[in-house]
Amino acid sequence: MSIIIRGGTVVTADMTFAADVYCDEGKIVAIGDNLDVPENAECIDATGQYIIPGGIDPHTHMQLPFMGTVASDDFYTGTAAGLAGGTTTIIDFVIPAPGQSLIEAFHQWQDWASKSAADYSFHVAITWWDDSVYEDMGTLVNEYGVNSFKHFMAYKNAIMADDETLVKSFRRSMDLGAIPTVHAENGELVFQLQQEMLSQGITGPEGHPLSRPPAVEGEAANRAIRIAEVMNVPIYVVHVSCKESLEAITRARNEGQLVYGEVLAGHLLVDDSVYRHPNSEFAAAHVMSPPFRSKDHQAALWKGLQSGNLQTTATDHCCFCADQKAAGKDDFTKIPNGTAGVEDRLAVLWDAGVNTGRLTINEFVAATSTNAAKIFNLYPRKGSVSVGADADLVVWDPKGTRTISAKTHHQNIDFNIFEGRTVTGIPSHTISRGKLVWANGVLNAVRGAGQYVERPPFNPMFDALTKHAEVNAPTAVNSD
Amino acid sequence: MSIIIRGGTVVTADMTFAADVYCDEGKIVAIGDNLDVPENAECIDATGQYIIPGGIDPHTHMQLPFMGTVASDDFYTGTAAGLAGGTTTIIDFVIPAPGQSLIEAFHQWQDWASKSAADYSFHVAITWWDDSVYEDMGTLVNEYGVNSFKHFMAYKNAIMADDETLVKSFRRSMDLGAIPTVHAENGELVFQLQQEMLSQGITGPEGHPLSRPPAVEGEAANRAIRIAEVMNVPIYVVHVSCKESLEAITRARNEGQLVYGEVLAGHLLVDDSVYRHPNSEFAAAHVMSPPFRSKDHQAALWKGLQSGNLQTTATDHCCFCADQKAAGKDDFTKIPNGTAGVEDRLAVLWDAGVNTGRLTINEFVAATSTNAAKIFNLYPRKGSVSVGADADLVVWDPKGTRTISAKTHHQNIDFNIFEGRTVTGIPSHTISRGKLVWANGVLNAVRGAGQYVERPPFNPMFDALTKHAEVNAPTAVNSD
Amino acid sequence: MSIIIRGGTVVTADMTFAADVYCDEGKIVAIGDNLDVPENAECIDATGQYIIPGGIDPHTHMQLPFMGTVASDDFYTGTAAGLAGGTTTIIDFVIPAPGQSLIEAFHQWQDWASKSAADYSFHVAITWWDDSVYEDMGTLVNEYGVNSFKHFMAYKNAIMADDETLVKSFRRSMDLGAIPTVHAENGELVFQLQQEMLSQGITGPEGHPLSRPPAVEGEAANRAIRIAEVMNVPIYVVHVSCKESLEAITRARNEGQLVYGEVLAGHLLVDDSVYRHPNSEFAAAHVMSPPFRSKDHQAALWKGLQSGNLQTTATDHCCFCADQKAAGKDDFTKIPNGTAGVEDRLAVLWDAGVNTGRLTINEFVAATSTNAAKIFNLYPRKGSVSVGADADLVVWDPKGTRTISAKTHHQNIDFNIFEGRTVTGIPSHTISRGKLVWANGVLNAVRGAGQYVERPPFNPMFDALTKHAEVNAPTAVNSD
Amino acid sequence: MSIIIRGGTVVTADMTFAADVYCDEGKIVAIGDNLDVPENAECIDATGQYIIPGGIDPHTHMQLPFMGTVASDDFYTGTAAGLAGGTTTIIDFVIPAPGQSLIEAFHQWQDWASKSAADYSFHVAITWWDDSVYEDMGTLVNEYGVNSFKHFMAYKNAIMADDETLVKSFRRSMDLGAIPTVHAENGELVFQLQQEMLSQGITGPEGHPLSRPPAVEGEAANRAIRIAEVMNVPIYVVHVSCKESLEAITRARNEGQLVYGEVLAGHLLVDDSVYRHPNSEFAAAHVMSPPFRSKDHQAALWKGLQSGNLQTTATDHCCFCADQKAAGKDDFTKIPNGTAGVEDRLAVLWDAGVNTGRLTINEFVAATSTNAAKIFNLYPRKGSVSVGADADLVVWDPKGTRTISAKTHHQNIDFNIFEGRTVTGIPSHTISRGKLVWANGVLNAVRGAGQYVERPPFNPMFDALTKHAEVNAPTAVNSD
Repeated sequence: MSIIIRGGTVVTADMTFAADVYCDEGKIVAIGDNLDVPENAECIDATGQYIIPGGIDPHTHMQLPFMGTVASDDFYTGTAAGLAGGTTTIIDFVIPAPGQSLIEAFHQWQDWASKSAADYSFHVAITWWDDSVYEDMGTLVNEYGVNSFKHFMAYKNAIMADDETLVKSFRRSMDLGAIPTVHAENGELVFQLQQEMLSQGITGPEGHPLSRPPAVEGEAANRAIRIAEVMNVPIYVVHVSCKESLEAITRARNEGQLVYGEVLAGHLLVDDSVYRHPNSEFAAAHVMSPPFRSKDHQAALWKGLQSGNLQTTATDHCCFCADQKAAGKDDFTKIPNGTAGVEDRLAVLWDAGVNTGRLTINEFVAATSTNAAKIFNLYPRKGSVSVGADADLVVWDPKGTRTISAKTHHQNIDFNIFEGRTVTGIPSHTISRGKLVWANGVLNAVRGAGQYVERPPFNPMFDALTKHAEVNAPTAVNSD
Repeated sequence: MSIIIRGGTVVTADMTFAADVYCDEGKIVAIGDNLDVPENAECIDATGQYIIPGGIDPHTHMQLPFMGTVASDDFYTGTAAGLAGGTTTIIDFVIPAPGQSLIEAFHQWQDWASKSAADYSFHVAITWWDDSVYEDMGTLVNEYGVNSFKHFMAYKNAIMADDETLVKSFRRSMDLGAIPTVHAENGELVFQLQQEMLSQGITGPEGHPLSRPPAVEGEAANRAIRIAEVMNVPIYVVHVSCKESLEAITRARNEGQLVYGEVLAGHLLVDDSVYRHPNSEFAAAHVMSPPFRSKDHQAALWKGLQSGNLQTTATDHCCFCADQKAAGKDDFTKIPNGTAGVEDRLAVLWDAGVNTGRLTINEFVAATSTNAAKIFNLYPRKGSVSVGADADLVVWDPKGTRTISAKTHHQNIDFNIFEGRTVTGIPSHTISRGKLVWANGVLNAVRGAGQYVERPPFNPMFDALTKHAEVNAPTAVNSD
Repeated sequence: MSIIIRGGTVVTADMTFAADVYCDEGKIVAIGDNLDVPENAECIDATGQYIIPGGIDPHTHMQLPFMGTVASDDFYTGTAAGLAGGTTTIIDFVIPAPGQSLIEAFHQWQDWASKSAADYSFHVAITWWDDSVYEDMGTLVNEYGVNSFKHFMAYKNAIMADDETLVKSFRRSMDLGAIPTVHAENGELVFQLQQEMLSQGITGPEGHPLSRPPAVEGEAANRAIRIAEVMNVPIYVVHVSCKESLEAITRARNEGQLVYGEVLAGHLLVDDSVYRHPNSEFAAAHVMSPPFRSKDHQAALWKGLQSGNLQTTATDHCCFCADQKAAGKDDFTKIPNGTAGVEDRLAVLWDAGVNTGRLTINEFVAATSTNAAKIFNLYPRKGSVSVGADADLVVWDPKGTRTISAKTHHQNIDFNIFEGRTVTGIPSHTISRGKLVWANGVLNAVRGAGQYVERPPFNPMFDALTKHAEVNAPTAVNSD
Repeated sequence: MSIIIRGGTVVTADMTFAADVYCDEGKIVAIGDNLDVPENAECIDATGQYIIPGGIDPHTHMQLPFMGTVASDDFYTGTAAGLAGGTTTIIDFVIPAPGQSLIEAFHQWQDWASKSAADYSFHVAITWWDDSVYEDMGTLVNEYGVNSFKHFMAYKNAIMADDETLVKSFRRSMDLGAIPTVHAENGELVFQLQQEMLSQGITGPEGHPLSRPPAVEGEAANRAIRIAEVMNVPIYVVHVSCKESLEAITRARNEGQLVYGEVLAGHLLVDDSVYRHPNSEFAAAHVMSPPFRSKDHQAALWKGLQSGNLQTTATDHCCFCADQKAAGKDDFTKIPNGTAGVEDRLAVLWDAGVNTGRLTINEFVAATSTNAAKIFNLYPRKGSVSVGADADLVVWDPKGTRTISAKTHHQNIDFNIFEGRTVTGIPSHTISRGKLVWANGVLNAVRGAGQYVERPPFNPMFDALTKHAEVNAPTAVNSD
């Protein structure tokens, strides 16, 4: 079945133009005025609407086993919710337990993900180090289409990567043409502060942000960036939540270093007052790391997005329902960390970004799709509206409205951090791999229709780094 | 006549892919594998070479009447030299004398430019202010295709714009959807320092940089940027030559302000030691404003280009031969300011930028062509390799070499600031409006073949500014 | 009559120690344990209290003729109120009208000030320029004890100094060993914004801050600082009210430039919500320039004070009562600019600074007295507790409290911007030139008891600048 | 025996005044004009000279056992050399081996130091962690006069402190009122780079700086500062050698954090070209960590000193002769790290600092003596010229000259990094604890005359931190 979208305005990261878009066999095959297409092509009327590349969420955790429970949105329900919101690709995380084979873990996640309704790819976390990890990184890059590795600088006594691991993994990544990513929080400081809070009798969710102040994140971001600088490798900092880490990124970028930053829709829109809410269940529902921050941090994050110092937006979608959150009722350090959002990201960003003049519509496309595709080397297959690209498209209705609520969302969680927010600007149609899966409020997600997306190594940015290394290789001084 | 380029690799600002490119009637009409084209199409073999958009030099002064003489490259010789170097479009400057009608000056420059061999457009300078200037700005934007206005903050007692003029012209520009640009040097400081140098007996060219230290430029850049911030208008700073002005730009960009910066090939590659050369003619040949700077400033400028805080590269091409420069033999303040480079820009930037790993090939394209097209609202007509765009293309030979010299260049000047530099990476062919004008060292520039390029106002960046102004409009407080 | 203060703890800018302090004939003559003094010496029991140098307010405008009226606190009432609050020296401003002789204006102000109850000195404003101004600056420095000149960068069409004046006056100041100071606001921008506000029907006091946004101040601060850098002269920025100007100062200081910044007690403690108060009289009472700012600016100013990037605190004390403020009832640009505070500065700074841990007690002394004395070359005669210094002392009761109110203050104004604030930490006794003028709530200020304080030029900071200039003097290049 | 210094000009950190200074029984007992002193007082004629507080070198390693050898200057020869150069107090380091009792190590160093010719004090290094270390820190502060603890972030597999140790030791330091100090280099990165250099065949001293690039230091400095921020403790960064760590300090100071930075005379004056000297012995003689840096870093360090972002100057005096350095002949990682300078610091800083206009004479005093005394809570006993202070004084001859050479210096090492430099400005006399030990080139250092100086905890800066902690203590939220 083929689809022709007529009457709309195509919006890409750098252009806006009126054109029809024709998709067939999962690809975009023509873009132009008054396209001549087969009669049986399904026709979508996009008059007064925009045609944009499907959203890419580069940070999700579907059905993640974490802190003694498992995230409630699995790969099917989670990707389906994403499609309802205009997100057609996710990049999730394979997280091996310390000591576990990376390849084994990769296969485990692949198995879980086979039920996905939308395309998916995987970052792989480096949670420990020995020679087998070194070897497996090569296998993952060269045989399994992985081009990014994740490092948790927090979660001491669990999956935290220490400096030795960072240094070795970053070096290995560079050699493989893969990009290291980091969750930047100083795990030692978090651990110390958690103990101090508990010892002071602060056991409720308000202890969560108190044990993870912005300096904890800024320190780790700067450390990872400097290690990357020394190792001559690009680096991607996930979920930048505060001025301190944004500034670390900005400083490095201003010096020409290849540093990328991701910001979550939640951090842009929700502030830390939620943690002091008198209802501790409400507060616990917002526990994620890094935590939501005060409004001045939010203002800084928006500027980071506007300036291009932050390139991508994501959700860190990781759902835990109230009964799961209750595990930390008497000790905030035991509340499963995570919040949802894969369904809401595009709409809240349009509403708070485009409607306020913070972002142009082209910048919106870049921030929700194109930039992630470029950084993770999926462009122009993903993140573009171009002939030959995957037919992952959204027809965006800038006048459509929706009031966000857990009662009506498709995510498998009993809470929504954007509850009650009415947004203007919503997807009227979502096309995934050439299939119409969301149309005017009706979701037709198909279990298992999503495909694994391999991402090749040696993104073009590596060219300059490699050349730089050659030109600046150290040499010995002859002495006599 | 049509042209087919076969066997090359297309490089744009964000993609690299193998494809043939077919041009007809001045436009790109097809891009793809093994294109089927008319037999009589002229075929260019680009095997092993890149196909890039023709260079755009957004800062030239052909046949400029200045400081008592006229620049020696006219619109024909200058644009022809540009074609030999891969530049297919220039944006020159209409500079009315204080008191002169803007429209009158515009027609004067149009007349001079009619002999151009390549496409051209015009910024118009605001050198004075009254109601007629206000009116003429509107006419230029709405009837003559001008979308940028230039302001000289230096040249006291001549064309300097004071703060009142800046404020009023920036406000007017915003209303018209045009972008203000500035030559950022504090003219009062320059004037004072010039007098001090002369009074201390420093009359040679070494006095030129001493009277224009970096702080003079940094101050003016910051001032213009802050005025633009308050007036809610984008701003473009021409020929950023030093850390101080780069930092002013960077600060503002990091805050999300729409600020753009241009850097000259000369400032990236030539340092200020030239002014202390014992041969004062050699030194005088390098007199331009702002002056060449020390190596630490050069390093900063490269980082500015790498980080994207500087977006465009230009030349400020303004040729004066030795006999013209001699007017300032006994008083450096009378040396006509200007140096050449329109022919050399792409090659020196490739050699010092791409070959060293500072820039990827995509970033090279962005910095020499695409970004200027976007900022001055010519994109994708100019600055892209896309179907429908003007057929302004360069076949770039990354292995070709050339030793730059005044003896062999096509510029009408007896000096070359890059004299003796051997570069690797040169244009093998240049196509201008679908005509092959440069092929393997042979120049076929045609007098008058260039066309005036209108640039429409309200570049997409204005959308966000306008929305921002609406959302933040001040309101009165009711008191009682 | 002599005074012995017993049992207290002396606090200076760099030391804290228990000692008695004995004053005679207007000077401190002994500091030590159990001092042996004449029996008739008046004894003050300072047990549990601190002995600190009397406050210096380097920015007041007593009985200033301004905007069609005259400030309501004259030199007697204003200095007396200062004594009640622990301030024993003011530096006021001689402000010649454009075209008026500086010397004539200086004599006028000296005449007005002869009734002062506390010591006073004068900055002199440079509001215009010609050769006589150049000459008079020399006379003021060499014969009248003036070592600082003020420049208003705002107030277009009145006392605004343009760049030419700044450049020439800064150069002249350097030659004389005097420090230039600036009121940093871009007068052209303010003027333009005022016209825009009025044309939009915004005539009430809320238009005041809207016409003077932070960027207006940041621009001017940076401009003045860069001009000072080029002219190789120190510079002092008065009433820094926002992040933007603080950052300009900080940047320059980090580069080693001699830049000093003053912050007003009002800007530290009052935010801009006052301008949107429904009672427009209340709002008008807060109209001063630069205006009060939002809380994030206040937080930045405190950090500026803590970091030492801001050195001095002042009040810009300039009183206008409600009937005077009413002149701008229908047009905010006609509201006389000014607020009071000379009486409250020390107490509010102690309460909000020392009691919160922002400042140590030594830093409090530096910020309220010692630093101003050093910058304006009065140290150690003023600003210290040392043998030989003027006996200007305050016995500070860290546990004493006071609720600030216009009903009880000694300032001659019907409004207090700190109204209702209860502070802990107040002066129990003030000694001025060896006389006890304030004791436990009783004020014994004497009309005319204050003396004019000459300030010699060539503060020690000039040594390094002069040496720097010698070492870096430009030289001519010999050519042949 | 008492000493009267007549005819000189006293220079302190904040004042310059003509006065005689009289010392008796090791103390300064009078300062004033024409002092009346006992006839037998030894008289020093200081006409035309300055009287300044004796230098304090807060960073030396006398007779340090390190890298398989022992530093060649012991506490006697090293302190004697210091006296010859005007340094009257050193703060050396007790460095326990991992696992060794801190108290045991302290006694070991006390024993070695008992032969000192000048006063000495000790920082104690925290090289490992367990409960006994926690306890011993308390003992050292409360019983042994230690108020500062050192942390090596480099030297992996030896004395490196990991993040857990930093966090715990910083928290403990705050509770004790002691200041943590750090050697800031990321030990993991250094280790990795060392291995890479060796594997690439770079075994000579040129490998030393290549394995310790500035980013390695900047990262560690920022990390330590952020940990200190979170732990609410002041921090002192030793031997800041590059822009990156200076910027980390500057950023934090600008935010009001209590961060202090020390710079070595060597880093200010020697650049990294020494490591590429064809004579590898010459290069090896310069091996210290962090290494000497390029000239742009030196320029930045001077600005750091001028701006006050760096407060103290030191030497890291740690002497190894050529035969000791030879241990790393075939492997640069085995060259004992260290250079000398305790004798030369004041003279080179005066020559390169005061004579060039970078520093005033008061700033020189602050940077060589007073600031160290304040930070390490020795002020005004040390670092001042005041009645009651220890009689540690230098008569400084601003016109005296000396050509520095290993042939003539008093340091027990066969090399001098300042070899051949002729300085103007030298000590003519040094008085230590009231004894004249250096007079016009004659050294009369007495073995064992130096005394251990206890330093009390809770420097005044802790007041504000403690108050801050009280005001901002976290509280639990009551939920229901």
